[in-house]
Amino acid sequence: MSFAETEHMTLDDNRQKMYAKIAEVFSNHVPFHKVIGFEFEQMALDGCRIGFDNKPELIGNFIQKILHGGVTATALDVVGGAMAAVGMMDKYPDADEQELGKRLARIGTIDLRVDYVRPGRGDSFYAKARLLRSGSKVAVVRMELHDEKDTLIALGTGTYMMG
Amino acid sequence: MSFAETEHMTLDDNRQKMYAKIAEVFSNHVPFHKVIGFEFEQMALDGCRIGFDNKPELIGNFIQKILHGGVTATALDVVGGAMAAVGMMDKYPDADEQELGKRLARIGTIDLRVDYVRPGRGDSFYAKARLLRSGSKVAVVRMELHDEKDTLIALGTGTYMMG
Amino acid sequence: MSFAETEHMTLDDNRQKMYAKIAEVFSNHVPFHKVIGFEFEQMALDGCRIGFDNKPELIGNFIQKILHGGVTATALDVVGGAMAAVGMMDKYPDADEQELGKRLARIGTIDLRVDYVRPGRGDSFYAKARLLRSGSKVAVVRMELHDEKDTLIALGTGTYMMG
Amino acid sequence: MSFAETEHMTLDDNRQKMYAKIAEVFSNHVPFHKVIGFEFEQMALDGCRIGFDNKPELIGNFIQKILHGGVTATALDVVGGAMAAVGMMDKYPDADEQELGKRLARIGTIDLRVDYVRPGRGDSFYAKARLLRSGSKVAVVRMELHDEKDTLIALGTGTYMMG
Repeated sequence: MSFAETEHMTLDDNRQKMYAKIAEVFSNHVPFHKVIGFEFEQMALDGCRIGFDNKPELIGNFIQKILHGGVTATALDVVGGAMAAVGMMDKYPDADEQELGKRLARIGTIDLRVDYVRPGRGDSFYAKARLLRSGSKVAVVRMELHDEKDTLIALGTGTYMMG
Repeated sequence: MSFAETEHMTLDDNRQKMYAKIAEVFSNHVPFHKVIGFEFEQMALDGCRIGFDNKPELIGNFIQKILHGGVTATALDVVGGAMAAVGMMDKYPDADEQELGKRLARIGTIDLRVDYVRPGRGDSFYAKARLLRSGSKVAVVRMELHDEKDTLIALGTGTYMMG
Repeated sequence: MSFAETEHMTLDDNRQKMYAKIAEVFSNHVPFHKVIGFEFEQMALDGCRIGFDNKPELIGNFIQKILHGGVTATALDVVGGAMAAVGMMDKYPDADEQELGKRLARIGTIDLRVDYVRPGRGDSFYAKARLLRSGSKVAVVRMELHDEKDTLIALGTGTYMMG
Repeated sequence: MSFAETEHMTLDDNRQKMYAKIAEVFSNHVPFHKVIGFEFEQMALDGCRIGFDNKPELIGNFIQKILHGGVTATALDVVGGAMAAVGMMDKYPDADEQELGKRLARIGTIDLRVDYVRPGRGDSFYAKARLLRSGSKVAVVRMELHDEKDTLIALGTGTYMMG
């Protein structure tokens, strides 16, 4: 996880710990994230980013070796949910780990839109997210999926219930 | 695969063979479908249906044992794509297997919207689809995900490029 | 306004008054509703319905005399918002008119998806809505637009912020 | 209409004429555009832009004087459709006016998503669009609505049938 090495070290320590905790939970305690192989590369209020390598199990179109659209949707939903979590935690800078856990468990996707722009070819992919709107009830997040050459594969918008 | 035993046996034989072929391709030649464990239960012009069992790898919320939203999105996209494929093939009743394969490979999701209505708890799930619009250029499909007790988990709408 | 004559008269009187008040506000105090000519025909927890007549100002495609897609989107958004309002007020059966007004003013559309299924031809149209999800934070509503012969013109899904 | 004065004058003359013709049709021959008061300010392959003034008829929330969400959806759909039209005409640089008219009449919105980010206050608004994907069958367009101070009001994505 590289998020600790980003420019966001100027944030106070508790916030950094909270973001690291969220990334740790999302990386290690969500079984489907391990199936796909997501790494949580950046967790910050000005943007989240996850990455994953292409591998045979993730293929949808067996003739053209293209990433399955469900993997694309999953990556966008996950990075959007991470962004919503960071946005939510930013409102509770003094929360302890127990409160953090409770709030995280309540975050959920209300709706998701994915626009598939180009076939997902590539050796690895990254998805990034930024907050459009972060309220006490819902967060709205925009997401993008790119391959390792920065080719845009898909765009998404998600609305998330806050915890 | 139970689609061969449905009421749709009155369709001519070539069409039945084509639908069976589509189901066979989607079941056996799409690696990510095997990861999740989709079965293609019904392939027919008046509706498609796929099913899958819950299992630990598909969990998103580890505390509440809820299906990952990405699995939900994938199931909706897949049954919607199957429906688009059936809708497309219905326009080419005399196509041979080679033409079928070419056309199938060109079908792709343009966009997908998922509305998450309830947490996905349950032992097994099924997703069904019906055609809203089937043209020469695009198909629009509505989809639903239910658990084995017919509880509605999520709704979706997908727009698919025709082959 | 015909909603008072529906089968929903078995609801208690205060609730009926609240629904009538919502319809009155939406009919008479929203300028853009008058531009299009919406009538609020049914306001009830199991479904809302609005109607409007076709007229030259609402045309988008001047050659084919088709309803403008923006009018379609507006009708779906409005009936969805009415449904969200009814869903919200159902949670506060003892609210007085002042509280009702405050809560109504806080309802807002978070996101809207419209699927255009067929060109909007016809002498008049109606849009109806039903609640998919009604929580303390958000409501999710599905909507449909039909012409006077019940031809389906468009479908929509809206997510609304609760007041 | 200011689009003729933009930096896009380097495009060949026929293309410029076609874009001007599209803007003329959209401005003068679409009744609902006159109701709202859209001006087509820029028509170019790298982006389209329309503007309109706030006025009492466009208000949705009568207490807070906020633009009706249906006006927002309409503005996004219209600038997205203009962008799709420009994208389509770019594929037929030698089309004459008659062919142009026929093709324009066939363009239609397949689906539209609107994300409402902030209440629409302001004296005037502009909506701009850029092509995400422009194929022979469909175009996918991203749109934004801003007020005259460049405050982001709403975002949209539209999928359009090509003519």
